[in-house]
Amino acid sequence: MEPALAELKGRLGEIVDLGRTQTLLHWDLEVCMPPAGADSRALQLATLSSVIHERSTDDRIGELLDELEPYAASLDPDSDDACLLRVARRDWEKARRVPTALMAELAETQARSYEAWVRAREDDDFASFRPWLERMLELRLRYAECFAPYDDPYDVLLDDYDEGLTTEHVRAVFDALAPELVALVAEHASDEDDPWRGPFPIPLQERLARELLEAMGVRWDEFRLDLAVHPFATSLGPGDIRLTSRYTEDDVLSLFTALHEGGHGLVEWGSSPTLDRTPLAGCRSSTLHESQSRLWENVVGRSLPFWRWFYPRLQEAFPTQLGGVSLEAFHRAINRARRSHIRVDADETTYGLHVVLRFELEQELVHGRLAVREVPDAWNTRFEELLGIPVPDDRHGVLQDAHWSGGSFGYFPTYLLGSVVSVQIWERAKAALGDVEEQIERGELGELHAWLRENLYALGSKFPPLETIERVVGGPIDPQPYLAYLREKLGALAAA
Amino acid sequence: MEPALAELKGRLGEIVDLGRTQTLLHWDLEVCMPPAGADSRALQLATLSSVIHERSTDDRIGELLDELEPYAASLDPDSDDACLLRVARRDWEKARRVPTALMAELAETQARSYEAWVRAREDDDFASFRPWLERMLELRLRYAECFAPYDDPYDVLLDDYDEGLTTEHVRAVFDALAPELVALVAEHASDEDDPWRGPFPIPLQERLARELLEAMGVRWDEFRLDLAVHPFATSLGPGDIRLTSRYTEDDVLSLFTALHEGGHGLVEWGSSPTLDRTPLAGCRSSTLHESQSRLWENVVGRSLPFWRWFYPRLQEAFPTQLGGVSLEAFHRAINRARRSHIRVDADETTYGLHVVLRFELEQELVHGRLAVREVPDAWNTRFEELLGIPVPDDRHGVLQDAHWSGGSFGYFPTYLLGSVVSVQIWERAKAALGDVEEQIERGELGELHAWLRENLYALGSKFPPLETIERVVGGPIDPQPYLAYLREKLGALAAA
Repeated sequence: MEPALAELKGRLGEIVDLGRTQTLLHWDLEVCMPPAGADSRALQLATLSSVIHERSTDDRIGELLDELEPYAASLDPDSDDACLLRVARRDWEKARRVPTALMAELAETQARSYEAWVRAREDDDFASFRPWLERMLELRLRYAECFAPYDDPYDVLLDDYDEGLTTEHVRAVFDALAPELVALVAEHASDEDDPWRGPFPIPLQERLARELLEAMGVRWDEFRLDLAVHPFATSLGPGDIRLTSRYTEDDVLSLFTALHEGGHGLVEWGSSPTLDRTPLAGCRSSTLHESQSRLWENVVGRSLPFWRWFYPRLQEAFPTQLGGVSLEAFHRAINRARRSHIRVDADETTYGLHVVLRFELEQELVHGRLAVREVPDAWNTRFEELLGIPVPDDRHGVLQDAHWSGGSFGYFPTYLLGSVVSVQIWERAKAALGDVEEQIERGELGELHAWLRENLYALGSKFPPLETIERVVGGPIDPQPYLAYLREKLGALAAA
Repeated sequence: MEPALAELKGRLGEIVDLGRTQTLLHWDLEVCMPPAGADSRALQLATLSSVIHERSTDDRIGELLDELEPYAASLDPDSDDACLLRVARRDWEKARRVPTALMAELAETQARSYEAWVRAREDDDFASFRPWLERMLELRLRYAECFAPYDDPYDVLLDDYDEGLTTEHVRAVFDALAPELVALVAEHASDEDDPWRGPFPIPLQERLARELLEAMGVRWDEFRLDLAVHPFATSLGPGDIRLTSRYTEDDVLSLFTALHEGGHGLVEWGSSPTLDRTPLAGCRSSTLHESQSRLWENVVGRSLPFWRWFYPRLQEAFPTQLGGVSLEAFHRAINRARRSHIRVDADETTYGLHVVLRFELEQELVHGRLAVREVPDAWNTRFEELLGIPVPDDRHGVLQDAHWSGGSFGYFPTYLLGSVVSVQIWERAKAALGDVEEQIERGELGELHAWLRENLYALGSKFPPLETIERVVGGPIDPQPYLAYLREKLGALAAA
């Protein structure tokens, strides 16, 4: 190997190690840390963030990249090394734009702000969270400023979640989706009660979640499943994937959370071993990540073939609660459109409108057209316009999600883009595998997993996400297959 | 504040943050990490260890310390700042002796070696662990070499656990103890079976462990209690203390583990808030730490007053298992001398002999008089001489403890020194508090905790441990009160 390349890989490998360490600090904060540890944790995160930023912006990396330019030019552009050198340069140039002190301040404030959000949500007290949200917005705008000149500061924020994604991309997709989703909700939304009655004991739900994850391919010597207020999945290395979930005795939605987080986990797990300990390891695109959580949660996990397989097992686990509920009634209940307040509990059809709302508000905030103190009112007004029901309180409104506490403006759109892309990818998989629905009906998820691993997960972060999507589905992000998928599903439910 | 002092404290604070982050990597490795995460974790530990070492040896710290010398000379030597400057200089000078590459290699090898030990212990396969032990010994000797010239390389290793402690100190105490302990065992050891019959369901044991910890003062918004193969306690900050324990259905020894780890936790928790995020935060002396785990576990937790309070509760929890066992029979069973193989399950009297064995073997290893491949035989032979029973296999012999897998030669002696010091401190507390045994009999542990906190825990690491002991007990480490304590306890059991 070129000596310069070996040195560069050594330096990048250390940055990956420190990044994974930072991931552990975050995972622990949400899963394990006693509440009184928050102050120390915020300082730990700030210090580690400084260290990572210093290492990521080291002059030596730039020198090595310059030295390696002729070598890079000699490589097949699809090779691991060519991709590595492209991404390493991009990362270095982006990191060099931002002062270390700002990165440390962001990290420390994020940790404190998260704790403030947890309390504010518990207490339904937006006022106590407001200063934190103001602070995070200000810090993220200062961050965006580091990349001036830009077309739109929101582009800078989006780029952190999906390289090359712009506000215009998002708007084009959302403008096509929003009126169609509103129309679908108007046509199909129902207020039927769920056909089941709980309680569904939580230990049993967890056991079933683990069974489903095992069927997806999860192995417990390489994965964990824990509780978290706001479920997430993360990777600390190729053999250390952490899923989280939450449970309520009222229903079995936790199974969908498990499928969702399991999807995220499989993406990380499937990254090619040749990419480990480089910036190409795992999937850094939020849209692609979400395409896989949604593919497993919704496209697979709310389909009739899936429940033809698993519903008997579910009824066996909960005989008094579900014995009298038919497969069709269950399938209908987990798929029908229904106006509700909480994004993560929303059905597939209304889900997109929850995201559109957040995208619109983020646009207003980032462009200074809306003050943080005005957000709850703006939320409640626009929510009712889009979803057609009033918001009873901020717990069921603006305080429901953790993202803004971390300043993750620009993240929400990737959820809906992920749903859109999930259907595009599913159609490719179906075409390639032929009888995938029959396999699912037999509880065999292995071939689907293998196809996704080979065609998507293995790529890690070698290519920018829009290019990866082009490679996998043969075209750009297209909302039409997603709309067709929803129309077909809702039409079938209405006809049944 | 002096600007140089502010800068120094900032730098030292960052080193503390990174050290706590390293602690989390270790805690997680032992408590949470899926086994397949070991490779990535080893690299994370190595990289973070390099970062910490680089920061700890930065030229700038030396410059600041030089600049602050006149200021240090002007301070009350007992003041926090004077102690901080002394300890900071010592840490810096020690760290500068050791190459960063060696620190990283130690950290990485420790992590891999720990995993090898876990597997070797499970499989009773010393041969698979031998290369790791050889490697750790070699690395620790290379570490000791960094401090040449020395009187004894073992002194260098001891100094990492207790500043200023020497092989001669240890030998003087152990030479006084070993023959007396052998004589006490010869006189009092019994082979009586335990008077109870299990199983003791583990969830109930854990609930009782939590009750005991709460009585000691533990608050769950600042502490955690988890499972670990080899129980330990650690601190990630003043409001984030992590205890671990293990359970077997055969007996209730887990309650003593909880008291033991709880003692460690209280020491860290009680460190003065003025010392937080400095190298003086928490107790860095293994002997003093162990004095408190043993004080709570044994001096308090195996005393008759303690069980007069808690035994009715234990019987209530396990009515069929303990309903027919009298308080006196229970107290006798948890205190009587009994020859056994596993150090952490040993009674107070034989415990010291387990430590003496390890100290002797470590001496032989460090001075090259014993090869690693000879250790199992040497262990088995010397064990039988000291304890009077043969060793059935390496799981019950040389493979039982994690310490050597981490190269922690020099650590074991502090366990016995801690027992010795625990009795010296207990006598001081009893003299100061008067009716402390009556308080314990009423389940009131608060005054004892407060006295220990004020007189010991609050000091953190301001003074070298031998000086702290002098301040608290008015003299040096003295084995006689410990021997008197054992003689009295065993005599009372024999007379009963």
